[in-house]
Amino acid sequence: MSDFKSKFMEAYYVLKSELLNDPGFEFTDDSREWVDKMLEYNVPGGKLNRGLSVIDSYSLVDDGKELTRDEIFKASALGWCIEWLQAYFLVLDDIMDNSHTRRGQPCWYKVEKVGMIAVNDGILLRNHISRILKNHFRPKSYYVDLLDLFNEVEFQTASGQMIDLITTHVGEKDLSKYSLPIHCRIVQYKTAYYSFYLPVACALLMAGENLDNHVDVKNILIEMGIYFQVQDDYLDCFADPEVLGKIGTDIQDFKCSWLVVKALELCNEEQKKILYENYGKDDAACIAKIKTLYNDLKLEEVFLEYEKKTYEKLANSIAAHPSKAVQAVQLSFLGKIYKRQK
Amino acid sequence: MSDFKSKFMEAYYVLKSELLNDPGFEFTDDSREWVDKMLEYNVPGGKLNRGLSVIDSYSLVDDGKELTRDEIFKASALGWCIEWLQAYFLVLDDIMDNSHTRRGQPCWYKVEKVGMIAVNDGILLRNHISRILKNHFRPKSYYVDLLDLFNEVEFQTASGQMIDLITTHVGEKDLSKYSLPIHCRIVQYKTAYYSFYLPVACALLMAGENLDNHVDVKNILIEMGIYFQVQDDYLDCFADPEVLGKIGTDIQDFKCSWLVVKALELCNEEQKKILYENYGKDDAACIAKIKTLYNDLKLEEVFLEYEKKTYEKLANSIAAHPSKAVQAVQLSFLGKIYKRQK
Repeated sequence: MSDFKSKFMEAYYVLKSELLNDPGFEFTDDSREWVDKMLEYNVPGGKLNRGLSVIDSYSLVDDGKELTRDEIFKASALGWCIEWLQAYFLVLDDIMDNSHTRRGQPCWYKVEKVGMIAVNDGILLRNHISRILKNHFRPKSYYVDLLDLFNEVEFQTASGQMIDLITTHVGEKDLSKYSLPIHCRIVQYKTAYYSFYLPVACALLMAGENLDNHVDVKNILIEMGIYFQVQDDYLDCFADPEVLGKIGTDIQDFKCSWLVVKALELCNEEQKKILYENYGKDDAACIAKIKTLYNDLKLEEVFLEYEKKTYEKLANSIAAHPSKAVQAVQLSFLGKIYKRQK
Repeated sequence: MSDFKSKFMEAYYVLKSELLNDPGFEFTDDSREWVDKMLEYNVPGGKLNRGLSVIDSYSLVDDGKELTRDEIFKASALGWCIEWLQAYFLVLDDIMDNSHTRRGQPCWYKVEKVGMIAVNDGILLRNHISRILKNHFRPKSYYVDLLDLFNEVEFQTASGQMIDLITTHVGEKDLSKYSLPIHCRIVQYKTAYYSFYLPVACALLMAGENLDNHVDVKNILIEMGIYFQVQDDYLDCFADPEVLGKIGTDIQDFKCSWLVVKALELCNEEQKKILYENYGKDDAACIAKIKTLYNDLKLEEVFLEYEKKTYEKLANSIAAHPSKAVQAVQLSFLGKIYKRQK
């Protein structure tokens, strides 16, 4: 666990309090209470890995010097901006996916009295990021770069979500739309930018770096983000639900999972028929047939081989970086996800 | 009509084409086509008053000098950012209000194959604003002020929408929640900032002005925006539907309209009972009782008196401004809305 967890949580309460007393809007008592509840329900309840990694990364690029109170708070504020961004995506994604639960509780839009007001709450969450950035970074020389960064990453995430939605939901359920390149493109845009690149980019900006000089770091982190999502797809089917903390549903949900695109790549005509006939059906027998097929195609081994190759490739790319500090940031991310079980 | 209408439309096609070929995202053919259709359906089909008023205002603050091609394009781009912002709000508002039609066609989310993907399309529309600003204003000294301006106005609009949603939709239909101050607060935040202040603020920034020096202009435009919405509420009930182009439904929709808050202010106990028993019911007899009550309370006269007073107050405030050019911008807005019939 990050050494900064308690300081990070303290920052949340400061930021929330500022937002609830924002001079840019005249709250009514009801609306202030609404935002308070909405934030508590949606923002701090995740694993907070993305947010915490901003402070960890900043501490590493700052070459291990002891951080000042102000540096810890500022890095925390940027970390919370990423958590707010995540909350915004999740609140709206759950509406679009017609999901029921999230983090062990009903999705926000499923809460009584909320319903479609959740759409506007999602927008408010996005707007809170701009408020936090303005409150705490307006005089900084890198303020405009922070705005550009959050705008760019949000655009990429929404664009990735768009191809996911169009591919998965528009028209018939049709496996011929799924392939490794489309899987990779969805994952890269929808997940990798905001989960892996954004925390490090925030830390680099805070340390006074120009992001244009770190395109290589970006590419490595995006690659890592894709690997992370491939693990997610693998664990959904092959992990022990007790360890994973949930029961996977990608097969019945007709998800464009790495497993199904690999299966499509490796199968013969007969196996292809089984995939087309059984994938995306919420029926125990169909799910079992898909799982048997995954085993016949030795997808566990294929995954382990992919994992090994990816690790080596990433480790080599990281080692080639001229700065030891930047290497350390990337290795810390890689260490956290390599061979993870949940 | 603005002299710049055709130039303004040309700019739309340039901006759309840039967005469909944005190097920040690798489009699939399907997703490019999706965005193209989504933009055509939602962005250019309105009256375009807000967008056009950026060019008109810029031309006035620029003291009537002939605008260069580049100035016309840049002012058009900012105008289109406001139209994109409006499209973003409308696409999402229609989902939240469960509306059926907009601008004479089905709401976007009601279109076949779209549904809840419209939520993500709304997000994309918002993100296009950041892309347009970055593409065309990144090197300008006022770029960061443009980002701050759009962020601030979006925040205010979403906050106004929040109190509207909470007041109108959460809990029982209860007229005791409606009053002139709450009506005014909703209108100011939800409508006035983005419809009246934003176009002029864009023009001022383009002309090199510091918005901190124009707080008085902001206050006058907000006041004008409130007056505009009061007209809207008045016309919803009292305008000839033939002239207005639609049939008002505020009474049955339980809207927090200026008319109902005025009625609540002016009524006696007996009339109050009529309001409570009949407002917000989709029943011809109930609607008729409310309209009779509005007539008994002479709300037409009350409105005309309000309109007269507001006009005088605004005209006096404008006349007090030191700059003739800035006066001209404000008078042009006032002239367009005073005593409007639709």
